[in-house]
Amino acid sequence: MRWIAEVHVSLRSGIADPEGQTIGSGLRALGYDSVAEVRSGKLLRIVFDAESSDAAQAAVADMCRRLLANPVMETATWELRADEQQDAEPANP
Amino acid sequence: MRWIAEVHVSLRSGIADPEGQTIGSGLRALGYDSVAEVRSGKLLRIVFDAESSDAAQAAVADMCRRLLANPVMETATWELRADEQQDAEPANP
Repeated sequence: MRWIAEVHVSLRSGIADPEGQTIGSGLRALGYDSVAEVRSGKLLRIVFDAESSDAAQAAVADMCRRLLANPVMETATWELRADEQQDAEPANP
Repeated sequence: MRWIAEVHVSLRSGIADPEGQTIGSGLRALGYDSVAEVRSGKLLRIVFDAESSDAAQAAVADMCRRLLANPVMETATWELRADEQQDAEPANP
């Protein structure tokens, strides 16, 4: 069964975020004076196969821990959904 | 009124994504053989003030168009929510 995980990797609060600060300065320079803060992060869309929803959840948690996020500086959250297109049976097999 | 916009900036399909490909190779090298594709993008959390929900939506759309996303290569989507903490009245003013 095919799954799509949308993983959000964000810097922990308190960790300096020069990219976010630069984007914030850019927005204010364009006239958006009301911008108080910008924090930047990464968005990863992972397409993979797993037997069950539980197995898919466990796989994503493991991927985040082992490669996708640095737990000292970052936190990872994700949303998991089945890839409907891949599961659909062909109409005329 | 204070708003939080979570902006997702993703590469359009068909645009090469070396970062996503590298992360995919890394995951497969770690043993996640079932990973079919990884696409990378940016996640921006913008805290700003606006008079109303409509004004906030318009401001974010404008920010995406003018600075946050390159419309030739990227698409931007966002979720907007009111910042409850900032709206709360102090218990003892």
